[in-house]
Amino acid sequence: MRVLGVDPGLTRCGVGVVEGVPGRPCTLIAYYVVYTDPADDLSLRLLHLDRSLTDLVAEHQPESVAVERVFSQHNVRTVMGTAQASGIAVLAGARAGLPVQTYTPSEVKAAVTGSGQADKAQVTAMVTRLLRLAEPPKPADAADALALAICHVWRGGTRSKLAAAADRARRGGAR
Amino acid sequence: MRVLGVDPGLTRCGVGVVEGVPGRPCTLIAYYVVYTDPADDLSLRLLHLDRSLTDLVAEHQPESVAVERVFSQHNVRTVMGTAQASGIAVLAGARAGLPVQTYTPSEVKAAVTGSGQADKAQVTAMVTRLLRLAEPPKPADAADALALAICHVWRGGTRSKLAAAADRARRGGAR
Repeated sequence: MRVLGVDPGLTRCGVGVVEGVPGRPCTLIAYYVVYTDPADDLSLRLLHLDRSLTDLVAEHQPESVAVERVFSQHNVRTVMGTAQASGIAVLAGARAGLPVQTYTPSEVKAAVTGSGQADKAQVTAMVTRLLRLAEPPKPADAADALALAICHVWRGGTRSKLAAAADRARRGGAR
Repeated sequence: MRVLGVDPGLTRCGVGVVEGVPGRPCTLIAYYVVYTDPADDLSLRLLHLDRSLTDLVAEHQPESVAVERVFSQHNVRTVMGTAQASGIAVLAGARAGLPVQTYTPSEVKAAVTGSGQADKAQVTAMVTRLLRLAEPPKPADAADALALAICHVWRGGTRSKLAAAADRARRGGAR
């Protein structure tokens, strides 16, 4: 299974692509960070992010997309941009006809480190080990996106398959 | 000038189209509310919103798009969906090559009622009067979207023209 993970952000958006099957080490395909200029107009930034993510989905042909779920505990100004970026990321997957699954930061941390309270350094260290990389992926936004993709592979895309089946059943019944 | 205003929301997204010039009453072209089902998968909801807004922009050919800026004072769960919907709305305008301007709720209220602290009923009453409608637009989400569009017409799209000029200058210098 090939998964494209997105750690959404308006200034820096991490993207990681891995391939694998549940319970076995994944293989790194590629990782990126999409940058947008904070001095630019919001519409130009979202457009750049949309085009970049759409291009990466087209290039890597993942079978599903995993996006980190956004919470509003953080800085108010930042979180709005992050939420907008996550909407663009989910849309990029949906427009390509792919199942899109969101995960909380704790779910991702627990999946790759065994603890939902792991810090960024631990996540990066485990991603480096799990993908058997010679060096940690840089910048850290890319490591988080790779962790998301690994998390989704290991969960076998289960939730998204169930959700897709439920959606089909519901829409089949309603239309 | 024809403006398409969007009052972003994931469950209910108001859209209002008006035509006019600064300082004179605007003419109503159309208004809509795009609904998405809270029981559906987030990706399906954002996809439906994206397609609906893209279709409405294509149908009404506005010269610019105005979107309400989202703040996080509200309910945490709701505001994330609202922020994602606003990202989709800004993107729909940007993808059509249109200037997109965001306004705070206070700016919109002040523009149509004279007070940034006006309540929803006052905004609806003024929109009804300003557009010379026989009845208030329903539901209220549509009235807010129309208020946004009126606000943008009356401001003459000034800020977006300035922003666009600044963007052009900046990009011209950088590339």
